[in-house]
Amino acid sequence: MRLALFDKGRLGVVDGDDLVDVTDQLTGAGTTGPAGAVQRYIETTARGETVRFDLAGRPRTPLAEAALQAPLPLPGKIIGAPVNYLDHKAEMEYTTSVADLGVFLKANSSVIGPGEDILLPYSDKRTDQEGELGVVIGRTAAHVSADDALGHVFGYTCVLDITVRSGEDRSTRKSFDTFTPLGPWVVTADEIPDPDTLDLRCDVGGTTRQRTNTADLIFGVRELIAYTSSVMTLHPGDVIATGTPAGVGPLAHGDRVVLDIEKVGRLEVGVDGSRATPYERRPGRRDR
Amino acid sequence: MRLALFDKGRLGVVDGDDLVDVTDQLTGAGTTGPAGAVQRYIETTARGETVRFDLAGRPRTPLAEAALQAPLPLPGKIIGAPVNYLDHKAEMEYTTSVADLGVFLKANSSVIGPGEDILLPYSDKRTDQEGELGVVIGRTAAHVSADDALGHVFGYTCVLDITVRSGEDRSTRKSFDTFTPLGPWVVTADEIPDPDTLDLRCDVGGTTRQRTNTADLIFGVRELIAYTSSVMTLHPGDVIATGTPAGVGPLAHGDRVVLDIEKVGRLEVGVDGSRATPYERRPGRRDR
Repeated sequence: MRLALFDKGRLGVVDGDDLVDVTDQLTGAGTTGPAGAVQRYIETTARGETVRFDLAGRPRTPLAEAALQAPLPLPGKIIGAPVNYLDHKAEMEYTTSVADLGVFLKANSSVIGPGEDILLPYSDKRTDQEGELGVVIGRTAAHVSADDALGHVFGYTCVLDITVRSGEDRSTRKSFDTFTPLGPWVVTADEIPDPDTLDLRCDVGGTTRQRTNTADLIFGVRELIAYTSSVMTLHPGDVIATGTPAGVGPLAHGDRVVLDIEKVGRLEVGVDGSRATPYERRPGRRDR
Repeated sequence: MRLALFDKGRLGVVDGDDLVDVTDQLTGAGTTGPAGAVQRYIETTARGETVRFDLAGRPRTPLAEAALQAPLPLPGKIIGAPVNYLDHKAEMEYTTSVADLGVFLKANSSVIGPGEDILLPYSDKRTDQEGELGVVIGRTAAHVSADDALGHVFGYTCVLDITVRSGEDRSTRKSFDTFTPLGPWVVTADEIPDPDTLDLRCDVGGTTRQRTNTADLIFGVRELIAYTSSVMTLHPGDVIATGTPAGVGPLAHGDRVVLDIEKVGRLEVGVDGSRATPYERRPGRRDR
């Protein structure tokens, strides 16, 4: 099943080329709030409740005309894996990988959805695209083994981990508003029995920059969940961006970024550099 | 006003040596959920609604007997300032400070409250205490100036930024479950007109390790909010841990950690090392 958020908070199920509105079928405990209806559905299933959507006779919109939003506009946590493909490790001349660096966090305020724009913050610092498979947690996970990890996954989505190349902590460089495009929907885990076999491609300005298969992940999805859950408890709706392959590169005003992941979907966003300002003008005292 | 969470989700106002239960006076939109009643109150004030608590005739508990919880058990974001006191910069032999490093993020799943235990994750890696003034955001802040920053503050609390000394990204080293003791309550900003003048002391095992005044912050509270809001939009209930002075040091099983901040409060937690395991046994493939 492909679950989408659209029209300012409606819940949709993708059916062929249509999006079917099932908002009214999501009943039960909990309000939707800024985390959205997909989050609420994930929490419903985490409680063991079953919701079967009946698509017959429901309002339909052609997908091409649907106003899709990020399926998870405000995740509880967004976790990233630094240096989780060998070819990206080589291109950046890194000497360490995810096994040494652990994971990092991105601000949940950085999410945007399909068709929105990445805002470049600095006019004189490089801001790169990083296309990644996103894992959406379905059941609370603490100290789970790699063997048990996939049982805690709700589904998968496309994530762009946008990153400024400067000297700050990763959390800063990756957490500017608009730096986590997510979507176009969440595909439930039953459609992807093995997430470590997916072709991934990322194009910028019509040119393919990144092409890999998730088989090349250093920490595969299972190991990444196992490691992360040994540090921090994962909750339903948390998102793990699994890392990016070689081919990261600078974004420019007017670029279109397209991330296509086999069996998951195709996420497209724009790039807006019109509000970028010089790095040296960022606020804060720099005299000590 | 000092706002506390207690007895599994009740909302209390500190009145002298008592905690007064005002849960039933918090009406209006929104449900409480895992973020808790203090968060809901903050969101209520952010919408411009006024809630005046009437303490007369309400149930009272002596503070010494109250089962206090973390006032914000699941903040939207927890932001930290790396190297924000010159004496801590010197003791760690760092060559950079917050002005170069920006901010980092801690997992919101790492919060514990007064009287709970910090769990040491690794038996053979140092885990340090870092006592800090916590700022609680009251109004959405994006690109605010230092001059306007305090108008976006809801209040202040005590934060321990517990940290493993190892090679991982800061977000990992600071995000283990239990690594963000918070409390004992939130003091509203009207009681602290200038947050850059507060004495802070942190004791471990009966010995004073850290003693400073927030006047010594490199980025003061205003500048820290201005800088952070230039990166990521701050939302009501977000917490900023403002950084730690010199005197960080290793925690051991059985230690009591006491953080005392002038006009804010006194936060005390324990340390449990009984579940610590060797660092090399953490999960994940380490062959590439």
